[in-house]
Amino acid sequence: MERNFSNAERAEVLTQALPHIQKYAGKIVVIKYGGNAMVNEAIREQVMQDMVLLRQVGVRVVLVHGGGPEITAMMNALGKEARFIDGLRVTDQETVDIVQMVLAGKINKTLVGLIGAKGGRAIGLSGLDDQLIVARQKDEKLGFVGDIVRVNTQPILDLLDRGYIPVVSTLGVGDKGEVYNINGDTAAACLAGALHAERMILMTDIAGLLRDPSDPGTLIPDITLSDAMDLMASGVISGGMIPKVECCIRAINEGVHRVIIMDGRVPHSILMELLTNEGAGTMVRKEDLP
Amino acid sequence: MERNFSNAERAEVLTQALPHIQKYAGKIVVIKYGGNAMVNEAIREQVMQDMVLLRQVGVRVVLVHGGGPEITAMMNALGKEARFIDGLRVTDQETVDIVQMVLAGKINKTLVGLIGAKGGRAIGLSGLDDQLIVARQKDEKLGFVGDIVRVNTQPILDLLDRGYIPVVSTLGVGDKGEVYNINGDTAAACLAGALHAERMILMTDIAGLLRDPSDPGTLIPDITLSDAMDLMASGVISGGMIPKVECCIRAINEGVHRVIIMDGRVPHSILMELLTNEGAGTMVRKEDLP
Amino acid sequence: MERNFSNAERAEVLTQALPHIQKYAGKIVVIKYGGNAMVNEAIREQVMQDMVLLRQVGVRVVLVHGGGPEITAMMNALGKEARFIDGLRVTDQETVDIVQMVLAGKINKTLVGLIGAKGGRAIGLSGLDDQLIVARQKDEKLGFVGDIVRVNTQPILDLLDRGYIPVVSTLGVGDKGEVYNINGDTAAACLAGALHAERMILMTDIAGLLRDPSDPGTLIPDITLSDAMDLMASGVISGGMIPKVECCIRAINEGVHRVIIMDGRVPHSILMELLTNEGAGTMVRKEDLP
Amino acid sequence: MERNFSNAERAEVLTQALPHIQKYAGKIVVIKYGGNAMVNEAIREQVMQDMVLLRQVGVRVVLVHGGGPEITAMMNALGKEARFIDGLRVTDQETVDIVQMVLAGKINKTLVGLIGAKGGRAIGLSGLDDQLIVARQKDEKLGFVGDIVRVNTQPILDLLDRGYIPVVSTLGVGDKGEVYNINGDTAAACLAGALHAERMILMTDIAGLLRDPSDPGTLIPDITLSDAMDLMASGVISGGMIPKVECCIRAINEGVHRVIIMDGRVPHSILMELLTNEGAGTMVRKEDLP
Amino acid sequence: MERNFSNAERAEVLTQALPHIQKYAGKIVVIKYGGNAMVNEAIREQVMQDMVLLRQVGVRVVLVHGGGPEITAMMNALGKEARFIDGLRVTDQETVDIVQMVLAGKINKTLVGLIGAKGGRAIGLSGLDDQLIVARQKDEKLGFVGDIVRVNTQPILDLLDRGYIPVVSTLGVGDKGEVYNINGDTAAACLAGALHAERMILMTDIAGLLRDPSDPGTLIPDITLSDAMDLMASGVISGGMIPKVECCIRAINEGVHRVIIMDGRVPHSILMELLTNEGAGTMVRKEDLP
Amino acid sequence: MERNFSNAERAEVLTQALPHIQKYAGKIVVIKYGGNAMVNEAIREQVMQDMVLLRQVGVRVVLVHGGGPEITAMMNALGKEARFIDGLRVTDQETVDIVQMVLAGKINKTLVGLIGAKGGRAIGLSGLDDQLIVARQKDEKLGFVGDIVRVNTQPILDLLDRGYIPVVSTLGVGDKGEVYNINGDTAAACLAGALHAERMILMTDIAGLLRDPSDPGTLIPDITLSDAMDLMASGVISGGMIPKVECCIRAINEGVHRVIIMDGRVPHSILMELLTNEGAGTMVRKEDLP
Repeated sequence: MERNFSNAERAEVLTQALPHIQKYAGKIVVIKYGGNAMVNEAIREQVMQDMVLLRQVGVRVVLVHGGGPEITAMMNALGKEARFIDGLRVTDQETVDIVQMVLAGKINKTLVGLIGAKGGRAIGLSGLDDQLIVARQKDEKLGFVGDIVRVNTQPILDLLDRGYIPVVSTLGVGDKGEVYNINGDTAAACLAGALHAERMILMTDIAGLLRDPSDPGTLIPDITLSDAMDLMASGVISGGMIPKVECCIRAINEGVHRVIIMDGRVPHSILMELLTNEGAGTMVRKEDLP
Repeated sequence: MERNFSNAERAEVLTQALPHIQKYAGKIVVIKYGGNAMVNEAIREQVMQDMVLLRQVGVRVVLVHGGGPEITAMMNALGKEARFIDGLRVTDQETVDIVQMVLAGKINKTLVGLIGAKGGRAIGLSGLDDQLIVARQKDEKLGFVGDIVRVNTQPILDLLDRGYIPVVSTLGVGDKGEVYNINGDTAAACLAGALHAERMILMTDIAGLLRDPSDPGTLIPDITLSDAMDLMASGVISGGMIPKVECCIRAINEGVHRVIIMDGRVPHSILMELLTNEGAGTMVRKEDLP
Repeated sequence: MERNFSNAERAEVLTQALPHIQKYAGKIVVIKYGGNAMVNEAIREQVMQDMVLLRQVGVRVVLVHGGGPEITAMMNALGKEARFIDGLRVTDQETVDIVQMVLAGKINKTLVGLIGAKGGRAIGLSGLDDQLIVARQKDEKLGFVGDIVRVNTQPILDLLDRGYIPVVSTLGVGDKGEVYNINGDTAAACLAGALHAERMILMTDIAGLLRDPSDPGTLIPDITLSDAMDLMASGVISGGMIPKVECCIRAINEGVHRVIIMDGRVPHSILMELLTNEGAGTMVRKEDLP
Repeated sequence: MERNFSNAERAEVLTQALPHIQKYAGKIVVIKYGGNAMVNEAIREQVMQDMVLLRQVGVRVVLVHGGGPEITAMMNALGKEARFIDGLRVTDQETVDIVQMVLAGKINKTLVGLIGAKGGRAIGLSGLDDQLIVARQKDEKLGFVGDIVRVNTQPILDLLDRGYIPVVSTLGVGDKGEVYNINGDTAAACLAGALHAERMILMTDIAGLLRDPSDPGTLIPDITLSDAMDLMASGVISGGMIPKVECCIRAINEGVHRVIIMDGRVPHSILMELLTNEGAGTMVRKEDLP
Repeated sequence: MERNFSNAERAEVLTQALPHIQKYAGKIVVIKYGGNAMVNEAIREQVMQDMVLLRQVGVRVVLVHGGGPEITAMMNALGKEARFIDGLRVTDQETVDIVQMVLAGKINKTLVGLIGAKGGRAIGLSGLDDQLIVARQKDEKLGFVGDIVRVNTQPILDLLDRGYIPVVSTLGVGDKGEVYNINGDTAAACLAGALHAERMILMTDIAGLLRDPSDPGTLIPDITLSDAMDLMASGVISGGMIPKVECCIRAINEGVHRVIIMDGRVPHSILMELLTNEGAGTMVRKEDLP
Repeated sequence: MERNFSNAERAEVLTQALPHIQKYAGKIVVIKYGGNAMVNEAIREQVMQDMVLLRQVGVRVVLVHGGGPEITAMMNALGKEARFIDGLRVTDQETVDIVQMVLAGKINKTLVGLIGAKGGRAIGLSGLDDQLIVARQKDEKLGFVGDIVRVNTQPILDLLDRGYIPVVSTLGVGDKGEVYNINGDTAAACLAGALHAERMILMTDIAGLLRDPSDPGTLIPDITLSDAMDLMASGVISGGMIPKVECCIRAINEGVHRVIIMDGRVPHSILMELLTNEGAGTMVRKEDLP
């Protein structure tokens, strides 16, 4: 149901958004979409609408998604059992086929369809399309788990130039055409780096970096790479946050201007981050940027 | 002073604006700017900001302005006395020089500067630039009062293509290079028609067309050309409203899709009209459009 | 293993192909890929290589695929039972989800990957990407079985312009974003018609239209629409061939120049049809074309 | 009245102009227009015709104008009295408003109109249009007298690309949108430098640089920057010529190839300079150019 | 030797040329070059310089040449004897080879070289280049004398677009690649018609159409097609003028706006015709053009 | 007569050509055409057909030709006697005129016509067109024998961009417009170097470089520049092969990737070299390329 705002209120909100729109117009923003924001249907709708709005006001958004829970669900439905070595999932041919089906077929096209239903123009890509993400085997024992060798930004740039929102499934393709399961955050970081994105937004199920994980009041709004590394060394950043921060480091080192670790559970958090004075979550940046 | 909205509120307003933005993206909207909206400094700032916002979200806005009161003020300052024949101002060479200076020099460039200060990119044109508005003498006794002969949309389209907001002073140029004073509403209607504008917005100091001019509650939100003509014939529309309605008729007959007579005294009325469900003022349309 | 040809032989084959290459250069050819040519791995590799070759010599190929057998296999693996009404499969939400996953995720991306491995540049699309195929429910009792309402050729043309081979999964999208299962041949015909394709090639598991289905020697190499309709009326064309011929009729009526019903079991049949004097299968054409 | 030339004479003149036309085709020439050439109506017509001719034969001309005498006349007409500090005019808000009106409204648009009447296509710009000339206050005591901070060549280049002759009023705009009075010669030099103009022509009311100001026979046709500085040091160049020479130095240091100090009182002096072997006035150049 | 003109004189000539330059800017002018203007070396140099000048000021000139006398001279040098049937030269294989060599090799490239030496950019074409002029045998008895079947304007337009002056030898090519000797005036007329040229100029060795061939004072400056046909019927136009006039008729009927029969013996006659008020020779036009 | 290949055979040949086509797509290949391949009519037809095929599959071919034997024949026919100084032909004005006629008129346009008859689109150029090859006199005693001063690749690139096959006669033009006879191999090398061609193919009447000129079994398939120079020093490469090898050296030093000395007497040798695994003749390459 639409809430009622007065004309003056609407105008004020739009007007206050203007300088932010101007700031991002024509810039590439890569959004790594996952976690609760993808599971919760209401938030998913909002995120897709935010994509359409951002594209409409001139931001060149690229949506990168993973899909762990849906993959697991499909494996269960098919009676496949998971095997792990050193905490990494052994991915046989059957498993990577399921990953491909679920990511590129189910999740990707559903997101593309949602964007279309909101009036946006999306095209879904996977790492296989025009060899967008070329990968090689990480470790023979793990099967089709891949490390990224090379990112081909051409299809992304072609789609952006023609006005589309590219939606990317993070599969990798090997030099014999074999498919690899790729870590989604890493893929997003590599892609954002190769695109020299203005922003990379990492949607997570936490509020951002916290000095004290148990106290949301200790959120760090803004941090430099070196401070982030210090916090990892001193153990303040730990557990599941470590790969997220490592992903930020990678993205920034490969050319992204700023990375935001964002709370995907908050409605319209992307819009808030990009189009208002209030940021959301933690912004990570290189030291030498003011 | 910025009012405080919650994230959710901001997101909701922006989201509700999206379908409207999509509707006008890439379309030409001609705004005839004048009256109180031009005199009141606060509203003027808002209108300029609205221009920048609309352009930023993809609307191809063209701002057309008059400037009667400032012309009169300058004439007074220079000690020129006004003479009228049948209610039309006799315009000698000195007068038309003043008109040119005030419109193309003072008002036009001030608006262009305001748009620039808001982060927009405007270029000011007059009817003399690339012979945008070619005119001829209406009546020898009136001197340099002109009727429009031809509109050259090329410079407007060139500026729109390069991303600028054209701001137009309604002077006319004769075939010997002489300058004419032109009725601003008529010039806007001709220009909007020649551009096949999606919308022409006529900013006035009234609420719109009223069935009873003394009762704002009798505002007509939507009217067809033939009904408007009936209301003129029956005297419901009378006085100063007649030229406004005639201007609407001309614009629509020359190819504009819809004309809105809008209350320029209401803050952000243009934004309201274009980006919300609530219209402002009276929309005039051809019968055969649904 | 590569066979050995003499220089003179190679030159002769290439030279004989030249007038055919010239004939199709820059033209759109839609290939409906399915049946044995898709199941047989060796032939699948060849078809993909033919796509790359045709694109390289200037033909604007569009590959449209179905995937019935793989859908059935996945349904079986997931323990879904098929239900039919009047010979049409009842498609509930779970079924259409499987169709989407298998077509757009498994088959489409595998083909895209194969083309990439041959040095081609393919991008996979489904009917959901930029609302390529808009559909509506055929019959409430059948669930998510759709009729095509509208084809949006823009994404196909954009990809062709940028040098890609579009690979299309024949899903449809409804106006609420719901997904429909669409008949693949019909979708290919509509797409080819909307693209005004020079040729549509329908890969089947038969030799073409036969006067006597039991005698391959009675192959009809070339037939007009009206003769084809006569043969249907007289019962010569019957059974599974009827929908194929109806698909040809639809394609030609919507603007395709010629449709070829081709035997997909023959290696390199597409190359033979397009780049040699020998056709393959049956060519259907309008009467008034010489 | 047209003089009569024989066919042979006309052909010879045109033919002799050809190598000069070839030399400047596609090059940017900035003309600082002022002094007698602007006041004398006959010469003004000729200069405008020269602009049209030069543009027609492929020279990318940019006309920059001042307007001191007309500003003074308008101030007098409005009863404003001039105040000076250290020889610089104190410019209050009212004065800068008059400057804006006269330059951007009266002179600029009159020139644009004259070019149009000769069949040329001109668009008038001021420093406010797309923030062409950004300035800041020189000295608080002087009010709205500005120093140039930054030149935005984009609107000039956009207009040149589309075939227009840009006509520029030398106003400056501050970061709060305030307008500044800018020295015209300096503005032209900065603009020409930012455009890397092939030539800047400075129209003056003197014959050029003279070794003996009282003897026109001592005209220096060609001088290097260092020689010009020596002549200033030794007092040969003095008085009103000093700012002109300083303007040349600035233009050349900012990237202009050559600057010509030209006698604007001589009819068609620009045409003579650019399209014949005879130069007019004094050409200033860097040492290291042959 | 350069004559001395005063600055004022040069300026006046250039200025008087301006409206003519504006009139032809961007328009196609086909010049059929031949006769004395091609034989006389001094005039040939002038014509080439005129080509360069016209191109430089924006006219899209196309130079079409014949070369009868040089062909005859080469045939004599090679000891070939001419044979005629009904006044038409019998053209055997050896003869058409000589025609090709002389036209496309000697004359065409010499003209191209002369234009280059004047600073112009010319590319020479023959009817064989990209099958510019497709012809068929006129009469078996005449051998390789051809009638024009089709003109391919693409290479001409491509060269004009890239800024070149196309110089065309009037050979024709048959569908087996055989070469035909084509009447030069007819070829020029067909080419000018296919290009919808603004003007076609036919350089001849006469002053134009004369009412009394023995009295140059009876030159007809301007004539309509129907009047020209009347003059042919009444015998006023006779002899060698008849094919010239028939060529004019053909050109105009195929879409050329005006054809000028010009005296190529007069120096710079093309320049005079196009860039001054004085025409040269006789202008032929359709009745219904004012 | 067309030989009969089976479908499978045709497909195999085309398929095996694909990686080669992909390798050269969009690359420039300069072919120096001469010797027996130009004299033998059947091979000439094949070479022209190969040109059309290569262009059709995306190779940007440039054909450079000489024509010694035909020049000599024409000189004989015209009764001109040859004079030599130190083995170089003395070229007087009459001789260079014959060279121009035969190369640019006879041979060039005949090749262009043949390409057209095969469905290709060729335009013939000489060194005079847009001053493609600027030359100066080598030695006064030799008359119009020229050394290359500068190559202007613009017309070649313009024609390639528009899809044409440029066919180049190796004449040179001097700064006064005089024509020079230029060594064809040298001209091809300079042109290929200036174009940074991927390949230059030198068609000769020998099998390639042989260790023992009397034994075709000693063909050197692949050699580096330094090894080739060693073989010249040691006398293995001698006689007529020396200028060929010097031409290779020049081409490679000026930027060509590889040069192939090819046996033009073998049918379709170009096609074999570019589109099969078997090379033909000897490939010369720089040391530092793998």
